[in-house]
Amino acid sequence: MDKRPNLVIQNPASFQGKWKDVFEKNQPLHIEVGTGKGQFITNMAIQNPTINFIGVERYESVLLTAMEKAELAGLKNLKFLGQDVKNLNQFFAENEVDRLFINFTDPWPKSRHEKRRLTYKTFLAIYKQVLKKDGEIHFKTDNQGLFEYSLHSMSTFGLSLKNVSLDLHNSAIENNIMTEYEERFSEKGMRIYRLEATYPQ
Amino acid sequence: MDKRPNLVIQNPASFQGKWKDVFEKNQPLHIEVGTGKGQFITNMAIQNPTINFIGVERYESVLLTAMEKAELAGLKNLKFLGQDVKNLNQFFAENEVDRLFINFTDPWPKSRHEKRRLTYKTFLAIYKQVLKKDGEIHFKTDNQGLFEYSLHSMSTFGLSLKNVSLDLHNSAIENNIMTEYEERFSEKGMRIYRLEATYPQ
Ligand SMILES: C[S@@+](CC[C@H](N)C(=O)[O-])C[C@H]1O[C@@H](n2cnc3c(N)ncnc32)[C@H](O)[C@@H]1O
Ligand SMILES: C[S@@+](CC[C@H](N)C(=O)[O-])C[C@H]1O[C@@H](n2cnc3c(N)ncnc32)[C@H](O)[C@@H]1O
Repeated sequence: MDKRPNLVIQNPASFQGKWKDVFEKNQPLHIEVGTGKGQFITNMAIQNPTINFIGVERYESVLLTAMEKAELAGLKNLKFLGQDVKNLNQFFAENEVDRLFINFTDPWPKSRHEKRRLTYKTFLAIYKQVLKKDGEIHFKTDNQGLFEYSLHSMSTFGLSLKNVSLDLHNSAIENNIMTEYEERFSEKGMRIYRLEATYPQ
Repeated sequence: MDKRPNLVIQNPASFQGKWKDVFEKNQPLHIEVGTGKGQFITNMAIQNPTINFIGVERYESVLLTAMEKAELAGLKNLKFLGQDVKNLNQFFAENEVDRLFINFTDPWPKSRHEKRRLTYKTFLAIYKQVLKKDGEIHFKTDNQGLFEYSLHSMSTFGLSLKNVSLDLHNSAIENNIMTEYEERFSEKGMRIYRLEATYPQ
């Protein structure tokens, strides 16, 4: 794990507005919030060398698997932040992020935990601060309740939804890269829900 | 069928802005577009005597069953229009409608028929003209593609979605009144999708 300091950025606030200097190449930046073990973002980085990726995961320990894989593949276009998503606007400047992925985030089904859901309005406001004007949120989940809630929360925030799929694995959408949770739930025969969202111009 | 003229309003444009005079009681007005055989709106009218209902169906012949049932029940709070929904703003004045139901409307799956879908933006614009400011659209369908499309179309129009259910018949939503199509498709084990939408204030 010698290379860990290179992969997990320890003082991300100091790179706010300067992420293009951190990566070898100046190219679009896609981030994932709640990365977990990082299978999705690692495979995205492998398949999309012309994009820079950053995975944000609160528990750095969870990132170990992802880091090992990223090191093995010698990826130059992938970094991780062991940080809480609620502080995202301290790590990224306005218009710095081209796309934001939310995959299988914790559903927090109880109403009193609504504020913890990564599609709650306070999080949508933070994503808006860092995303480019036409930047997209790509959201996937197996959780019906969370998806229903997110349709409400996002539309009420003014977001426009497109390429909605209520059964991703039986849809025409191609080149889907699966997350750990997605593999687990789709194997059980559960539907995967997906959407893309943009902020009002 | 003597009473048919009373139930199907023949010159609806002449009642624009005056529907409260057509009904016995001055009370909220709920309309359904694409009523079909009218099982839904007839049962709604029976169960909600403090609301006036109007079913709009292009083919008057289709309305026969509904009319017979309404006559039998002696309903005073239900009328029908044998009209095309695209002309709705000729029959209702601004703010005249409290709620609008769209149930199991034709999906028109081909892209080139998008404009015919009753959740296409031109229809959303017409509903906006006749609905009260905080008036709601209640939309149900078995058709996954139409629901996905409508999430896109409605959110892009600026509508706010709430009480979304991606599996109505296995949800907590109560007092659901089934339409003919809903009975047919749910019996086959198909999911029923539902949402409520409001226009931006
Ligand atoms: C259910 S897991 C899903 C992991 C992965 N995205 C997948 O699809 O397999 C959710 C992850 O999000 C992380 N997470 C939840 N809330 C977070 C927050 N506010 N900030 C950073 N990470 C968060 C959790 O620690 C957890 O690892
Ligand atoms: C698939 S059926 C559903 C009937 C009923 N709502 C139900 O759920 O059982 C759709 C109905 O909408 C009517 N319809 C479709 N487009 C219409 C329009 N533009 N104006 C009026 N009626 C329309 C059709 O004639 C048809 O009877």
